Amino acid sequence: MSDPVARKGLLLKADPIATAFRDEVKDTLEECSRPPKLVGILATSSAPSKNYAEFTRKQCEELGVEFVLKKTGAALDPELGEGEGVEEAIIEANEDEAVHGIMVYFPIFGVQQDHYLQQVVSPLKDVEGLHFKFHYNLYHNIRFIEPKSLVAAGMPPVAPTETASEEPPPGTVKSIIPCTPLAIVKCLEYIGVYNKILPYGDRAYGKTVTVINRSEVVGRPLAALLANDGARVLSVDIDSIQEYTKRPKVSANASPESVSAQRYHPRHIVHPSHLTLQECLAISDVVISAVPSATYKIKTEWLKDGCICVNVAADKNFDKDVRDKASIYVPAVGKVTILMLLRNLLRLQQYQQV
Amino acid sequence: MSDPVARKGLLLKADPIATAFRDEVKDTLEECSRPPKLVGILATSSAPSKNYAEFTRKQCEELGVEFVLKKTGAALDPELGEGEGVEEAIIEANEDEAVHGIMVYFPIFGVQQDHYLQQVVSPLKDVEGLHFKFHYNLYHNIRFIEPKSLVAAGMPPVAPTETASEEPPPGTVKSIIPCTPLAIVKCLEYIGVYNKILPYGDRAYGKTVTVINRSEVVGRPLAALLANDGARVLSVDIDSIQEYTKRPKVSANASPESVSAQRYHPRHIVHPSHLTLQECLAISDVVISAVPSATYKIKTEWLKDGCICVNVAADKNFDKDVRDKASIYVPAVGKVTILMLLRNLLRLQQYQQV
Repeated sequence: MSDPVARKGLLLKADPIATAFRDEVKDTLEECSRPPKLVGILATSSAPSKNYAEFTRKQCEELGVEFVLKKTGAALDPELGEGEGVEEAIIEANEDEAVHGIMVYFPIFGVQQDHYLQQVVSPLKDVEGLHFKFHYNLYHNIRFIEPKSLVAAGMPPVAPTETASEEPPPGTVKSIIPCTPLAIVKCLEYIGVYNKILPYGDRAYGKTVTVINRSEVVGRPLAALLANDGARVLSVDIDSIQEYTKRPKVSANASPESVSAQRYHPRHIVHPSHLTLQECLAISDVVISAVPSATYKIKTEWLKDGCICVNVAADKNFDKDVRDKASIYVPAVGKVTILMLLRNLLRLQQYQQV
Repeated sequence: MSDPVARKGLLLKADPIATAFRDEVKDTLEECSRPPKLVGILATSSAPSKNYAEFTRKQCEELGVEFVLKKTGAALDPELGEGEGVEEAIIEANEDEAVHGIMVYFPIFGVQQDHYLQQVVSPLKDVEGLHFKFHYNLYHNIRFIEPKSLVAAGMPPVAPTETASEEPPPGTVKSIIPCTPLAIVKCLEYIGVYNKILPYGDRAYGKTVTVINRSEVVGRPLAALLANDGARVLSVDIDSIQEYTKRPKVSANASPESVSAQRYHPRHIVHPSHLTLQECLAISDVVISAVPSATYKIKTEWLKDGCICVNVAADKNFDKDVRDKASIYVPAVGKVTILMLLRNLLRLQQYQQV
């Protein structure tokens, strides 16, 4: 018998996934009576933010979306402070009826003050989906909302969505989902982690996913999205590992009908996990990492053979030999993220007309 | 000539300040047809949180406020996760008409997820004043609000308050101010840093204050409050020093009328500062420190002789010899903070009836 041939997993760049959404955005734009206007707000001297602003402009121009970059603070004048004037710029764009979407280039002041600024952006113009209302909807598996709920007080007066269909019931529209977690879900759909044969709202059922990072911008909303779609998610952060799942715990003496896998909570529940990272990786069909560190690396030997690995961090969290174990490796999702942002922009433009 | 006598500054504990507010709360309670009900939500095994919950209970019982401690997660059962069930507990208390105020014992998950939870608490029951609406009002120097704005969407439709009088105009009530920054302001009023002879809204004019810490819970709202009240505030954090002031910058060639100290912006402006911490302390009449570190110490030799020092951190940020330079030293403000919380509770109970 000859030795098996060494064969590496597939390197899947985000371009083909982005292409599908670019076509969708183009089609929607052609139907628009008026192209939407996106305002980018750049308030720091940060080179990555400046580059990302230019990337946004390029994407918008290619597609025919009007993009205006508003510079303030250190982005406008090195004599000014980092972030100076950013809140005023957001308020001005909120109040300008010609503006359909607002994108703020974070980080600016650090997580706490930046979180404050994310609440200043009107939910009706929040293309990034970072407003509390959208996070609340996501965590509570509220998928369809009345557009007016975006300018109403408090939480939507609806229970978690009964996900019989992907189409919003009459009078409702889809809630806005934060761009980066949404882009990752779209990549997983493309790859086939979401099983289209399963009913909408439970298409990730049967998949175990490790998500490394539990920030409010990426890791926690992503874990909740995947768990609300049926996956068993192991959420790993520096200080703890949690399990996100909408399926009830199976106890040894439970009756058969109570443990039916088809029965689940209307939204995910979070439990502490006693697994280690190594144990999580050993059972995970999908590993998604978003650790903002150049030195953090996931050990390839810990991965389950044939798993799918997605790197979301600016640095590479997976080792060079990741494809020795992974069947598919997605090194970056940024090109899909920007299209999710433009898709959100087009939706919000519609919601503003209601 | 004999040597001057070594004389230490005054050690001022918060008790006499708290007493004045305890009497005020008692008087208001006596006028209440029904004592308010405060729900505390304890979701972790943290000993300081547990102690603070017991402290709240004791204060409430002494004053005749109904206090119910709702335990969830690891506070209820060591088998459960830290924070498990906390969001559901908040939503339940939001919806319970018999509950007038909600206090959540933070930290639970870390600053990001905790900030999310702070938005889940209804502003109408947020005795700690941590909701975005209250921070927005504070930063924008909006002092008086319509009670219904707390259950309305978006920001109050009013400009920064023209502070002719401390009394809210008809139809409006005072906004809620976060407890800890408010307690510090009340201590400074007691000490005389606020000059009652000056007009309301500008009584800290002429004072230079260094605030060490720029978190969204203590340092930044405090800096904004003091600057909106007329002080020049130097806001110090690990990575930068900023100046908060509502007075315009004086340039060398400005005309006399444009530099009148009586003219000021309707709310504070933030500029980067080129001063070092040592330079800030050398010119500061008041130094307030809230650094959560047992090893962080402000050098006594850097303090301006005769300054006022207030320690807000759980650890002591000032050295033992601080009173060699400080004229007054306040080692802790917690006893005033809890009374501000109860004062907010009584106000919110009234606002709920409107």
